[in-house]
Amino acid sequence: MFKINENYLKLPGSYLFSDIGRKVNAYAAENPDKKIIRLGIGDVTQPLAPAIINALHDAVEEMGNAAYFHGYAPDLGYEFLRNAIADIDYKNRGCDISADEIFISDGAKSDSGNIQEIFSSDNKIAVCDPVYPVYVDTNVMAGRTGAYDTASETFQGMIYMPCTADNNFAPEIPRETPDIIYLCFPNNPTGAAITKRNLQDWVDYANQAGAVIIYDAAYEAYISETDIPHSIYECEGSRTCAIELRSFSKNAGFTGLRLGFTVVPRELKTGDVSLHSLWARRHGTKYNGAPYIVQRAGEAVYSDKGRQQLKGQVAYYMNNASYIYEGLKSAGYTVSGGVNAPYIWLKTPKGMTSWDFFDHLLHTANVVGTPGSGFGPNGEGYFRLTAFGSYENTVEAVDRIKAL
Amino acid sequence: MFKINENYLKLPGSYLFSDIGRKVNAYAAENPDKKIIRLGIGDVTQPLAPAIINALHDAVEEMGNAAYFHGYAPDLGYEFLRNAIADIDYKNRGCDISADEIFISDGAKSDSGNIQEIFSSDNKIAVCDPVYPVYVDTNVMAGRTGAYDTASETFQGMIYMPCTADNNFAPEIPRETPDIIYLCFPNNPTGAAITKRNLQDWVDYANQAGAVIIYDAAYEAYISETDIPHSIYECEGSRTCAIELRSFSKNAGFTGLRLGFTVVPRELKTGDVSLHSLWARRHGTKYNGAPYIVQRAGEAVYSDKGRQQLKGQVAYYMNNASYIYEGLKSAGYTVSGGVNAPYIWLKTPKGMTSWDFFDHLLHTANVVGTPGSGFGPNGEGYFRLTAFGSYENTVEAVDRIKAL
Repeated sequence: MFKINENYLKLPGSYLFSDIGRKVNAYAAENPDKKIIRLGIGDVTQPLAPAIINALHDAVEEMGNAAYFHGYAPDLGYEFLRNAIADIDYKNRGCDISADEIFISDGAKSDSGNIQEIFSSDNKIAVCDPVYPVYVDTNVMAGRTGAYDTASETFQGMIYMPCTADNNFAPEIPRETPDIIYLCFPNNPTGAAITKRNLQDWVDYANQAGAVIIYDAAYEAYISETDIPHSIYECEGSRTCAIELRSFSKNAGFTGLRLGFTVVPRELKTGDVSLHSLWARRHGTKYNGAPYIVQRAGEAVYSDKGRQQLKGQVAYYMNNASYIYEGLKSAGYTVSGGVNAPYIWLKTPKGMTSWDFFDHLLHTANVVGTPGSGFGPNGEGYFRLTAFGSYENTVEAVDRIKAL
Repeated sequence: MFKINENYLKLPGSYLFSDIGRKVNAYAAENPDKKIIRLGIGDVTQPLAPAIINALHDAVEEMGNAAYFHGYAPDLGYEFLRNAIADIDYKNRGCDISADEIFISDGAKSDSGNIQEIFSSDNKIAVCDPVYPVYVDTNVMAGRTGAYDTASETFQGMIYMPCTADNNFAPEIPRETPDIIYLCFPNNPTGAAITKRNLQDWVDYANQAGAVIIYDAAYEAYISETDIPHSIYECEGSRTCAIELRSFSKNAGFTGLRLGFTVVPRELKTGDVSLHSLWARRHGTKYNGAPYIVQRAGEAVYSDKGRQQLKGQVAYYMNNASYIYEGLKSAGYTVSGGVNAPYIWLKTPKGMTSWDFFDHLLHTANVVGTPGSGFGPNGEGYFRLTAFGSYENTVEAVDRIKAL
């Protein structure tokens, strides 16, 4: 008789954003006259930039012509894209990363969920709290934790690193030594950034402890301050301890186009086995490459025109972030984030729980955000708003909240 | 100190098609004047059909317009595509499969590699021999086998079901009872088909043994005979024992576009846990949907124009299959497949090993095929040629082989 993966049964309830979707749909069905503004899920709203649209059309034309048709892509991605990434994201920032250390994928969510597969099931995992749920859930599904403890809302055997107002939403080195450390900066959900000096401390710690840092830099395009690193490879010694995940979703609006990449430096080894070779094997065996047309769209992101157009798109969203931040602050809310990230993290008023405030905002202002508690117990009493709406909707949402 | 997934180290060498690629590239570099014809890897060569190209251009236009822009796709795929599949692939064939039992993905290779994740590590796996390597390798990586035995070229603890000339390349029910059975028909690599009656025997056996059949129907579009089922759901009782994998790669030329789907009927359960709910959780947590534009291209595959154009494309490749089959037969080779599948499976002449014949064909005829032994020990002494080349190249390749 076949047996299921029992680890799946440890996961409580469903995925956070599915829960939110159900609540919002129910409210919308009961109140068809209300205009609901969604600043919840981190999905973009601006259309793809013209340089990207042109690249897509050109690539589609190729696919319709036998002489230029492209079948299976190279396992690790097309060189034209890997070279552009190596040059512009890394060499231009002084990072020593070569094109053959870059693995093209269908997005950072897949990579952040799949990367744990190359590690054994007895590694000790450390995550921030609050945290992007995928890091936790995929390790639970792989059997790297014990049961879920409903009282503490945590999984046994996982190390949680609190990120609270007290530590300025920056995790501290945990007391128990982890084997694998997930870090995401600029952070989802808090919008906090990490300075190069603080990130260097983590790199030094990981090298000393023999730990791997899985560094999710999906939001690096939103960094506005100069002492904030865009890549962990700006830190010394990172090639022996860090894997970096990157996305095209937030800097170029690819949420519906699906493209991302993972960097695994060749020096990252245990004994003589490199994580690079394991990830290459995983990638080649369980994945078959990102679509040619999407990889050409990714290349256009690095073109002169693409970069110029996307600079405007990021500025558009950061203008929203600033409007939310200033508006809520002037209305007496305690807010953070929004300076180097498209997320605003606010303290719920009058000691409301995150879900109470979610319901309150949905019912009175018809605005959808994300309850902080959905990201972990230390998110309780907080709430996330995203800057990815249209400017008009963002202004209207903030004005409605201010009028409450 | 972080620890790697040691199961990866059980895998001998690299992925079959990477090995072939290296050999061919080395020969090409040494012999720049030779025209090499590739009938090895199962990659298509015909451009995407006009109906698909039009759908792609239209969808790209939408992505460049704020009013029609699409961000994150629904977890399980867009309804327009799932409905088209449910109607045309299933209802029209009398199969009881609903749209919400269909999970859209980036292709059958990913699905066939990922599907094992929802099962525990102590399930007993049965595969055909020869076999598509992904089924075996992904179970090895997940720890469901023992070590690789170099003498027998098999993994300990895995059940191999020989498919040889003696049984007409059809597996027999194994002596040891498996929990999970991988079947692929029409078969890759042998090109053999299974009758509805024989498939019904497998379904009956699985229901009786409490086993799950993972049925890879990636090549169903090539079926030309009437007693061959296009889906396992044509068999009675399959809803309680079978998962089906389908691809857009071979019927519609999507190898470089990436689209597929997996069907998990809601009745497939152990206790009160349905595999449908586990796969939905896996899909929602470790994947973020196929690109909107590619799902629109998939929809075009089911349009009247699309279906008509693709019928022509399949006929084009099957004409190649027939040319290879007849040509080699007339030259004295022992051949099979090629009637309900785009693969021709031939016995190597004069007792040559599969790799010897590979080298011989590459060096003397400049034709690339796939060594049968790369698919498993019972593939030794066989060789796979694909019908996916251009007609001109196929004719030239066969004529060169005949002239040897």
